[in-house]
Amino acid sequence: MKQEHIDQIEAAASAIRERVEAGKATHVYFVACGGSQASMMPAQYMFDRELAIPSAIYTSNEFNYATPKAFDASSIVVTISHSGTTPETVAAAQKATDAGALSIAFSNAVDSPLWKAASYPIHYDHGEGAEEADKSGSVELRAWFEFLKSLDGEHAERWAKASSAVDALPELKAKAQDLYRDDCVRFASRTKRSKLIYTMGSGASYGEMYALAICWLMEMQWVNSNCIHSGEYFHGPFEITDFDVPFIISVGNGATKHLDERALAFAKQYSQELLVLDENAFSYEGVPQDVQEYFAPELLSAAIRVFVEAHAHDSGHSLSVRRYMWQLEY
Amino acid sequence: MKQEHIDQIEAAASAIRERVEAGKATHVYFVACGGSQASMMPAQYMFDRELAIPSAIYTSNEFNYATPKAFDASSIVVTISHSGTTPETVAAAQKATDAGALSIAFSNAVDSPLWKAASYPIHYDHGEGAEEADKSGSVELRAWFEFLKSLDGEHAERWAKASSAVDALPELKAKAQDLYRDDCVRFASRTKRSKLIYTMGSGASYGEMYALAICWLMEMQWVNSNCIHSGEYFHGPFEITDFDVPFIISVGNGATKHLDERALAFAKQYSQELLVLDENAFSYEGVPQDVQEYFAPELLSAAIRVFVEAHAHDSGHSLSVRRYMWQLEY
Repeated sequence: MKQEHIDQIEAAASAIRERVEAGKATHVYFVACGGSQASMMPAQYMFDRELAIPSAIYTSNEFNYATPKAFDASSIVVTISHSGTTPETVAAAQKATDAGALSIAFSNAVDSPLWKAASYPIHYDHGEGAEEADKSGSVELRAWFEFLKSLDGEHAERWAKASSAVDALPELKAKAQDLYRDDCVRFASRTKRSKLIYTMGSGASYGEMYALAICWLMEMQWVNSNCIHSGEYFHGPFEITDFDVPFIISVGNGATKHLDERALAFAKQYSQELLVLDENAFSYEGVPQDVQEYFAPELLSAAIRVFVEAHAHDSGHSLSVRRYMWQLEY
Repeated sequence: MKQEHIDQIEAAASAIRERVEAGKATHVYFVACGGSQASMMPAQYMFDRELAIPSAIYTSNEFNYATPKAFDASSIVVTISHSGTTPETVAAAQKATDAGALSIAFSNAVDSPLWKAASYPIHYDHGEGAEEADKSGSVELRAWFEFLKSLDGEHAERWAKASSAVDALPELKAKAQDLYRDDCVRFASRTKRSKLIYTMGSGASYGEMYALAICWLMEMQWVNSNCIHSGEYFHGPFEITDFDVPFIISVGNGATKHLDERALAFAKQYSQELLVLDENAFSYEGVPQDVQEYFAPELLSAAIRVFVEAHAHDSGHSLSVRRYMWQLEY
C-alpha cells in the first residue's frame, strides 16, 4: 500500500486515539449510500463484535434527517463516497464536523466536497492502472483494523497483526477468483436470461451480498433482486424458493456460518439454480486465524466480480449502461 | 386494553425503571425473526431517536451466534414470537435471562417456551373474536411508550400521554383502511398476475414495508419482492424502475418524509404501477402531534392489510397456504 494511504489512515487512527484518551469516543456511526454503505457493513459488524462502545450504520439521509439522539461531539462518524460528491453523504460528514465530532471520510476524489467536509479524509485508488493494494477494499480494511487498534488498546497487538496482514489481500483475492471462476462463469451463462436472482448471506458478509443485489444486479444488470439475510430466510422469504428461482448464497467462515449452512441446505433441496460461494474454501495464507472472518467479505467480493463480469458478457448488458443514473436530475 | 396486558407491560416497565435507577440499563436489544422482528423496527427507530443509550435490532440467530460485545447483565433484551416456539428467539430470550440481563418477551402463547425463557412476558390477543385494542399492534405500541417512560424519566409526561393515546388506535386503524380501501382494491386487481412487487419506505415505517415484502408478498402470496429503503433507492435500486414494475410506496409523516417524497416523485415519472400510502393523509385524532410519527406504522399496516386481502382474493392465492412452512422440518 502506498505511503500516502497509510499516512492518511494513521492520521485518522491517531485522532481516534486522542479522543479515546480524552474520553470523547462514545459512539461510532458509519454513514453512506448504496455500495459505499454496503462496503462499511462488514466494519459495523466487526465493531459490534469487538467493541463495547456502540456502532451503527445508516444510509446518509436517514442519519441527516432522523439523527440519532446519541450523536454529539464525542461521536466518530465515518463516511464514504467514491466521487466525493454524493450530496447526502457530504452533508453527513459536514454535520459531524460542525458538531465537533470526529469526521473521517473515504473517497477516490481528493479535494472533492466530501474531502473538504471531513477532518480526516482518506484516499483510495481506482480504475485502470490502480494496484489492488491501493483500492478501496485494502484501504478500508486496513483502516478498520487501525481504528480498532485505537479503540481497543487492550488488544493493540492483535489489531496490528491484522492490519499488516492486509498486504496479503491482493494475492488472496486473485486466488479466490481462480477458485470460483468456473462456477461463476457457468452460473452466469445459466442465468443470463433470468429476470430475477436472489442473494443471501449473513454476518460480516451480508454487506457484500447486499451490494451484489442492489448495485451489481439491480443497478448494473437491471435484474430484479433482494438480499435475504440467511437468518431471516425461514421466517417468510423461503416460500418463494422453487426449482427455477436462482440464488447466489455465501457461506460464512465466522460466527454466523451455521445460519448460512442451514439456509443453503434448504435451498439446495428446492432450487436447481444455485451459485454457492463458500468462504471456508478460500485461502487465508498469512492472515491470523482470529481475523479471517473479517477478510472473507473482500475475498467474496473478488469472486462475485467474476460472476458479474461473466453475466454482463453473456447477457450483453454492459456494466456501465444506466438509464437514470448520471442521465438526468433526480 | 385488557387489564392483564396493561399489568404485564407495567411489570416490565417497572423492572426497567429499577435497572435505570441502579445504573444497570446500558443497552437495548430488540431480537426476533421475520414479521416479529419487523414489528420491532419502529421501536428501534424510536429508541434511537429518543434515547442517548444505544439500541440495536437483530434477527435472532445473528444475536445468538454473533453476540454483540456490549451485551451483558446491564442489557435489556426484548423478544417476540407469536407462537412462542421460534427456537432461535427462545434461545435469545434464555441467553438474556442467563446473563442476568432484563429479558422481556411478547407472545400470543402463554406458557410457551418463550414465555418461560423470559422474565417479563407480555401477552397479546389474536384471531377471531380478539379486540383490536388487545392485539399485538396496540400492546406493543403501548409497551414502547411505557418503556420509554422508564428509560427517559425527564420526559415521563410526554410518554404517559403517548401511552394513553394508544386507546385511539383501533378507531384510527379503521379510518386508515376506509381511506385507502379503493386504492388498495384497485391496485390488488391490477397486480394480481404480477410476479414481482417492490415495496419502499423509511424511518419508523421501514419495518412495515419490510414485513409487506417478506411476509405478506413473498411468504403468503409467493410474489417476489424486496423492501427498498427510500434513502437507498437512488444509489442503485432505482435502475430497475420501469413503466410495468409495480411499487408500493409509503410516505412517512415524520423525520424521513423527504426521503420518501423524493423517491415517490421519481417513481411516479417512470412507473405506471404505484400504490402510494401517504401517512400524512391518515387521521391522528387524539394523538399528540409529537408522537404521530410513531403511530403511523400501525395505521400503515392497517391499510396494507386491505391490499393484501384483496390481492389474495383476486389472485386466488389464500393467505394461509404454505409449501414449506409448517409442512416439513427445516
